[in-house]
Amino acid sequence: MDEAVQKLIAQTAAGEVSLAQALAQAAALTGQVADIGCARIDHGRTARCGFPEFIYGAGKNADQLVRIVGHMAEKNGEAFVTRLDGAKIEVLKQAFPAGEADALAGTFALYTVPRGSRGEVAVLCAGTSDLSVAQEALNTLRFCGIGATLYSDVGVACIERVLVLGDQLRKADCCIVAAGMEGALPSVVGGLTPAPVIAVPTSVGYGAALGGFAALSGMLNSCASGVTVVNIDNGFGAACAAIRILNQK
Amino acid sequence: MDEAVQKLIAQTAAGEVSLAQALAQAAALTGQVADIGCARIDHGRTARCGFPEFIYGAGKNADQLVRIVGHMAEKNGEAFVTRLDGAKIEVLKQAFPAGEADALAGTFALYTVPRGSRGEVAVLCAGTSDLSVAQEALNTLRFCGIGATLYSDVGVACIERVLVLGDQLRKADCCIVAAGMEGALPSVVGGLTPAPVIAVPTSVGYGAALGGFAALSGMLNSCASGVTVVNIDNGFGAACAAIRILNQK
Amino acid sequence: MDEAVQKLIAQTAAGEVSLAQALAQAAALTGQVADIGCARIDHGRTARCGFPEFIYGAGKNADQLVRIVGHMAEKNGEAFVTRLDGAKIEVLKQAFPAGEADALAGTFALYTVPRGSRGEVAVLCAGTSDLSVAQEALNTLRFCGIGATLYSDVGVACIERVLVLGDQLRKADCCIVAAGMEGALPSVVGGLTPAPVIAVPTSVGYGAALGGFAALSGMLNSCASGVTVVNIDNGFGAACAAIRILNQK
Amino acid sequence: MDEAVQKLIAQTAAGEVSLAQALAQAAALTGQVADIGCARIDHGRTARCGFPEFIYGAGKNADQLVRIVGHMAEKNGEAFVTRLDGAKIEVLKQAFPAGEADALAGTFALYTVPRGSRGEVAVLCAGTSDLSVAQEALNTLRFCGIGATLYSDVGVACIERVLVLGDQLRKADCCIVAAGMEGALPSVVGGLTPAPVIAVPTSVGYGAALGGFAALSGMLNSCASGVTVVNIDNGFGAACAAIRILNQK
Amino acid sequence: MDEAVQKLIAQTAAGEVSLAQALAQAAALTGQVADIGCARIDHGRTARCGFPEFIYGAGKNADQLVRIVGHMAEKNGEAFVTRLDGAKIEVLKQAFPAGEADALAGTFALYTVPRGSRGEVAVLCAGTSDLSVAQEALNTLRFCGIGATLYSDVGVACIERVLVLGDQLRKADCCIVAAGMEGALPSVVGGLTPAPVIAVPTSVGYGAALGGFAALSGMLNSCASGVTVVNIDNGFGAACAAIRILNQK
Amino acid sequence: MDEAVQKLIAQTAAGEVSLAQALAQAAALTGQVADIGCARIDHGRTARCGFPEFIYGAGKNADQLVRIVGHMAEKNGEAFVTRLDGAKIEVLKQAFPAGEADALAGTFALYTVPRGSRGEVAVLCAGTSDLSVAQEALNTLRFCGIGATLYSDVGVACIERVLVLGDQLRKADCCIVAAGMEGALPSVVGGLTPAPVIAVPTSVGYGAALGGFAALSGMLNSCASGVTVVNIDNGFGAACAAIRILNQK
Amino acid sequence: MDEAVQKLIAQTAAGEVSLAQALAQAAALTGQVADIGCARIDHGRTARCGFPEFIYGAGKNADQLVRIVGHMAEKNGEAFVTRLDGAKIEVLKQAFPAGEADALAGTFALYTVPRGSRGEVAVLCAGTSDLSVAQEALNTLRFCGIGATLYSDVGVACIERVLVLGDQLRKADCCIVAAGMEGALPSVVGGLTPAPVIAVPTSVGYGAALGGFAALSGMLNSCASGVTVVNIDNGFGAACAAIRILNQK
Amino acid sequence: MDEAVQKLIAQTAAGEVSLAQALAQAAALTGQVADIGCARIDHGRTARCGFPEFIYGAGKNADQLVRIVGHMAEKNGEAFVTRLDGAKIEVLKQAFPAGEADALAGTFALYTVPRGSRGEVAVLCAGTSDLSVAQEALNTLRFCGIGATLYSDVGVACIERVLVLGDQLRKADCCIVAAGMEGALPSVVGGLTPAPVIAVPTSVGYGAALGGFAALSGMLNSCASGVTVVNIDNGFGAACAAIRILNQK
Repeated sequence: MDEAVQKLIAQTAAGEVSLAQALAQAAALTGQVADIGCARIDHGRTARCGFPEFIYGAGKNADQLVRIVGHMAEKNGEAFVTRLDGAKIEVLKQAFPAGEADALAGTFALYTVPRGSRGEVAVLCAGTSDLSVAQEALNTLRFCGIGATLYSDVGVACIERVLVLGDQLRKADCCIVAAGMEGALPSVVGGLTPAPVIAVPTSVGYGAALGGFAALSGMLNSCASGVTVVNIDNGFGAACAAIRILNQK
Repeated sequence: MDEAVQKLIAQTAAGEVSLAQALAQAAALTGQVADIGCARIDHGRTARCGFPEFIYGAGKNADQLVRIVGHMAEKNGEAFVTRLDGAKIEVLKQAFPAGEADALAGTFALYTVPRGSRGEVAVLCAGTSDLSVAQEALNTLRFCGIGATLYSDVGVACIERVLVLGDQLRKADCCIVAAGMEGALPSVVGGLTPAPVIAVPTSVGYGAALGGFAALSGMLNSCASGVTVVNIDNGFGAACAAIRILNQK
Repeated sequence: MDEAVQKLIAQTAAGEVSLAQALAQAAALTGQVADIGCARIDHGRTARCGFPEFIYGAGKNADQLVRIVGHMAEKNGEAFVTRLDGAKIEVLKQAFPAGEADALAGTFALYTVPRGSRGEVAVLCAGTSDLSVAQEALNTLRFCGIGATLYSDVGVACIERVLVLGDQLRKADCCIVAAGMEGALPSVVGGLTPAPVIAVPTSVGYGAALGGFAALSGMLNSCASGVTVVNIDNGFGAACAAIRILNQK
Repeated sequence: MDEAVQKLIAQTAAGEVSLAQALAQAAALTGQVADIGCARIDHGRTARCGFPEFIYGAGKNADQLVRIVGHMAEKNGEAFVTRLDGAKIEVLKQAFPAGEADALAGTFALYTVPRGSRGEVAVLCAGTSDLSVAQEALNTLRFCGIGATLYSDVGVACIERVLVLGDQLRKADCCIVAAGMEGALPSVVGGLTPAPVIAVPTSVGYGAALGGFAALSGMLNSCASGVTVVNIDNGFGAACAAIRILNQK
Repeated sequence: MDEAVQKLIAQTAAGEVSLAQALAQAAALTGQVADIGCARIDHGRTARCGFPEFIYGAGKNADQLVRIVGHMAEKNGEAFVTRLDGAKIEVLKQAFPAGEADALAGTFALYTVPRGSRGEVAVLCAGTSDLSVAQEALNTLRFCGIGATLYSDVGVACIERVLVLGDQLRKADCCIVAAGMEGALPSVVGGLTPAPVIAVPTSVGYGAALGGFAALSGMLNSCASGVTVVNIDNGFGAACAAIRILNQK
Repeated sequence: MDEAVQKLIAQTAAGEVSLAQALAQAAALTGQVADIGCARIDHGRTARCGFPEFIYGAGKNADQLVRIVGHMAEKNGEAFVTRLDGAKIEVLKQAFPAGEADALAGTFALYTVPRGSRGEVAVLCAGTSDLSVAQEALNTLRFCGIGATLYSDVGVACIERVLVLGDQLRKADCCIVAAGMEGALPSVVGGLTPAPVIAVPTSVGYGAALGGFAALSGMLNSCASGVTVVNIDNGFGAACAAIRILNQK
Repeated sequence: MDEAVQKLIAQTAAGEVSLAQALAQAAALTGQVADIGCARIDHGRTARCGFPEFIYGAGKNADQLVRIVGHMAEKNGEAFVTRLDGAKIEVLKQAFPAGEADALAGTFALYTVPRGSRGEVAVLCAGTSDLSVAQEALNTLRFCGIGATLYSDVGVACIERVLVLGDQLRKADCCIVAAGMEGALPSVVGGLTPAPVIAVPTSVGYGAALGGFAALSGMLNSCASGVTVVNIDNGFGAACAAIRILNQK
Repeated sequence: MDEAVQKLIAQTAAGEVSLAQALAQAAALTGQVADIGCARIDHGRTARCGFPEFIYGAGKNADQLVRIVGHMAEKNGEAFVTRLDGAKIEVLKQAFPAGEADALAGTFALYTVPRGSRGEVAVLCAGTSDLSVAQEALNTLRFCGIGATLYSDVGVACIERVLVLGDQLRKADCCIVAAGMEGALPSVVGGLTPAPVIAVPTSVGYGAALGGFAALSGMLNSCASGVTVVNIDNGFGAACAAIRILNQK
């Protein structure tokens, strides 16, 4: 047992620090959380959750992103950022030329170890307008080494387009279904497959589409039992849910 | 032409009475509005709109309903009331034993001339729970002499149930589609028929179904072009819209 | 029976493919859905619905639009796009000089066979500010060969403006009524005509107009029976509903 | 002037008491607020506002109401209570047999000096279902000695019903217009009269009527300029606004 | 009686036109509604409502505005436009150099007859941020020859600021009170004056201010009886309501 | 393979019947949908989705429920009903004495083959008030032969209560987490386990809890990646989602 | 210090158990959480938060409440329950005759050690209808030995009623201000005192009061800086916040 | 007593001015409210509330801000402005070079007397994206001479990050906790400390985060008793609430 720990035990025994504080100090010794000033990086997440900490790009400036990605690349050899606009993508590409940027999906992926391809996730989107959300899901899955196939523009106004995918839906480990407007596609998919169906409402539509709330509330009330839902436009979250499912296989 | 009418036209042309006043006086001259104290009955509605004034039962007490139905029966030989609870239905049945009451739909129909059966309206409902709304539509149509067929429990979670109705949907003059929860059925129907599709969101569901708003906003954003929508649980209004369509044939 | 079909039957008989999958593969042989990469074009829609697939321009980039319009023009000799901004219109005009663009309505129409003029739809708007929505309806109707007349700036604050249209409203096959703010116009129109009345709430107004929801909810509660409603600013959808009605004549 | 008042002015000018404190002390010196335990009665309201304090019955129990009405009757010889249910009305009638109770409107009026009839307020309601709200307004006006006439069931689905009232609307000192559902009536009335128009949305309707919010938001966006609005079902508040207007004549 | 009218009567007698249509044609002969293509100008409004038609600038382009203002200036010698942005104001100033533009309030006033100053309206605003709304009210009042005084930055967080205005509030013919955030000012004002109080919620604030809905719903529930409310930021509407009140004096 | 099937494939390939029609006919040929008058039972659901059709009890009357349960019991030897009130439970218990009713959860389970116990789902609820929702999930899982353990009253206000469950959460195949009020528990659980986390917002709370929407929107925005959400109080749906996940193992 | 604790610190420092697990084990070692079946009682709360765990009565049945209160009374000699209806209060009074029940506030307090009276909290309510909320706050404070005074019916429509309390507000350690309708009172109070002001919106009002949301959103936007807000009708929560403030003195 | 006061007393005694008006004039003599044209500065606020009037920069233009800051600097030697954008900050920096501007927080502080550091407020934010809100709180506290420490990026997805702060939270005089998305952090903090916890929902997040309403409603329903809430993104208001708490020490 090292000296710092012995001292901590002594202080606790002497009532100089509370037990709670002693445990907090003990945990800090293991270095799982790295404080880099603008952020506290959670290096224990892969162990706890089965996937690493990803970086939410929307609320951070370019400098912060470069520092965080740099820290992660150095420590883990990989980093994945979502919700990036064009300007931030440019800065990241200059700072990390080996990274893969996707402007449509707003993601940036950096890694050294080649990605594998485990399992099979079917990613559907109802219309061409939902593609950016579907692509965010695909990129997240691929960064984590999960196999994924995109089926786009298969909305229910032409029901044949989805019926024809019957076998693919039945064989998938998980289906991610992105749809805006009335968000009816996950209900139809849910009736065609035994696989988990993760519905992603998108903000496609106008007026009573309510920026995606029509689709969201529709999906939450799907008459196909066992459909689960993530936040509007949250392709990333749907992918993480799929990863949690594939963690179990 | 009587003198009062001539004078009215001349006064209108001279700007002595406004058009609004002139029309009001014309209506009064021709006796179109009957003031019976608790209500002003619009006897000109069939001429103007193609269907008579119906009676909204929700905000009126039993005495008022009896007086209004009595007045209409005497003048026109027919009356139709919606949104009735059990107690009001009982009072109406006692006052007008010849009337037809439907407790599920909350309607009361009184007539002497037998109803015909013109045209064909397909009335679908997604689940058994939507039946009262569909029945209100059916009763309204039948009171007005329109042919109508009910197809119940054909929700999209088992898509075969609606696909099998393809021919009936294509041949109908109009489709009325009632659905609660996510309200996806009108989108699928709209993709299968050239007929007008009138969507009726129902208040079936709970939580994020929002008392029918999830279905309502979904239907307003249907990816099947040309679907129109009426108020939540408004089977009566859907039937009136169908009558307007059949007025044109 | 051709060879592909025979093989499919044999595989099905042998249990190598499921019946559902066999049918999907059989349907694919008929080529009704054309997969052009960024979209799956539904060439069976005119047969099923009485009007062709239209293109929603809002969520697609200019390149995708050019490809889709090109594909449709080649296959069908016509294409119609809605929800276009100025930049996309410019690209389409350059790619298809024969097309008709309307910047106010945000539409683009391309066709070779001259359009006819069947039926008569009255398109009303309450104020000058609602014109773009009314124009989207007019353009859609005209592309489909439906006769249509615009009556603009006839809001109820000066009731004479709408009363004077009495005969035109009574003779129309269908009335499309666009209004923002309190959306009262469809109720007045509904009381003056036996024709179907399709109400289009517009996003005109501010504050409690709620981007069109005041008008939308007002129209859904119209005291004039049989008024149906489409999404906010959805002149296109109203036109498609009118086409469905005219399909029946 | 008494000494306490002189001292108060001097202290205020010297900054020893703030204006707020000074006014409070002045009110206390002149006995304007009476603390009766369960309530602090504002006897200065008639002087300040032109009408006395009225009693909101909804959140008080019968005992409290009896005490408050008793106190007011003793001090002022009059009291007016709104938002009463049947049970509370019974208690008040027993305690104050001279009072006038109206179960439909939920009001109770007690007075000794006969009421006059000054001015003329036109109170319209769109349907029979809006009558209780209109009656609350009528009772409040009459308690305050204001002349008022009721015109009921004049909704816009039969426009002649309101057009025929043109002269009465033009001659009124003020128009109170109660309507539920889409709440279109005040816009039509506002276009027909130079008088102040106070719109009262009612909770009549269902589904997208949203308990009166459809009417409320519609009225706030009335295309007839200068229409003002009070809370849903607030016939009382509309009457008070009319009294403020008649205060100015 | 002129020939057109005689012909109309004859046609009506012959059943060639309906009575309703005859009256509409008769009314058209009086020319109260002028159709100038992009708009139908209501020249009868002053006679009906006590103030002329004003022009809502938000949904019209500069060309339309110039045509409408030009038509009104020629016919009536005056025009008033609201909800103008800077660009439209510039175009109007160039087209009508005699007009008075106010960029803060977004209004443009054109007139030849000098404006009078009848009555006295007190216009209060809670904070400096509410000034543009208050100014829109002031400009509307002044265009219509109504006297008006502005009291700005008198919010309730420093209650002395409003208490000190007691006499001015009591003597005003009408008080217009603009406030954002929690919108408490009208309740305090309503307790200090017998005059009509018109509350204008403003969109000042953020987060739970909900773009003015916090203030709007607060004002609709004012504990000061008889406060009426107009739409968010609708200083113009409040002024029109004040004009209706002054019409009665 | 029988002749009807061969013909169907051929007709589909020839475009004589659409894919939609073909699938419907195939379903009819294989007897998957049973029309029992008040309902159309979907006997193909286990094959398609991995679990049988369950019965939503809320919108059906007791007679309908008895007929549906009877039909299912006869055909499949099992039936499961949700959303039952006490009265319906009594009727079902009398009709099917072998069934297991749970009044707290509102479920009724009937089966002959003993249930197995495959896998392990951890079902957590934040407070005692959330127990009925959690119990609905447990009953659904157990009816389907899935192992499940309940951990109740582990809300985050005493974080130790959930931390102590670390191992159980990590070892579960899936975690279902029911919480009302602010709905924070799934975020904490999501940070402690690699397993799929299905969040169930409950309607526990008052005021700004908005009947479960505070929890719902919070869960949709969980900072723990990969948490999915079902409808408010939808313990049944969460269990079905868990079954879909266990279907994949 | 006992051996288990030493080992725990060492394991934490070595990364063998996470901080979360370590704290949970520490809590278990010190017996802070008591699992009594239907609930897990948090006996560490007074040490951590400065007040004991209180019992939320709304979602628990009478049996559960008796068990929980019994456990707490035995362990700590005191228990406090909120949100009780009449029936549950009766059961608790029978089980614990020494307890103090308050039907208006819905609380039940049981204790053996007499309560002290530390500090001074001013509890204001705008109207008589807000009394139950204010009383819940008072009971909570008094159970915790905090001095508190009630000032009721001091709404801003008669501003003198609150101005007269100036000194009491300035001298209080904390002001709790309950108000419904527009919720303006906390803004006025906040401008008169340097003490913390905790605003409690109440559900008093109707229509646009939105069950307390008008008051809630108004209070969140108070123009008086530093006003904080609790949930609608949450007098209990306001009292707890006051206790936290008095914990600091 | 000076002459102005004597005259005022005489006029009041003579009935020439009302007592209320006399007091208002008397108060005006003390000069606590300074009318500088565009604003009425409240110089009495420090005496009444324990902190000076701060300047809300959002609704004022640069000229107004310079005048107000100039007036305050001259009178009090200090001024503090919030909600500034970059352009306004530049103008203020040029006008008052001694001021301290913070572009992230949007604040500007000007003072001559050095700030002290009394007490200790812990300011936590859940993610890097919440930093601007936390910084606004910090700047406000520091301007008022309150000690404050920032702990950023301590969201609950990695619970160790907040657990490790246990002692700091317990020792703080007050905790300000800013969080967006689901806003769970204040509940966890509230369970770890006896200090007042002021929750600040931030607008961080998208979709169902509803611009901060998910966090806001979550925090209002916190299961940790005694958490109070301020408006979305209102770091300033949280700091003022903390100052009110520290005023009491």
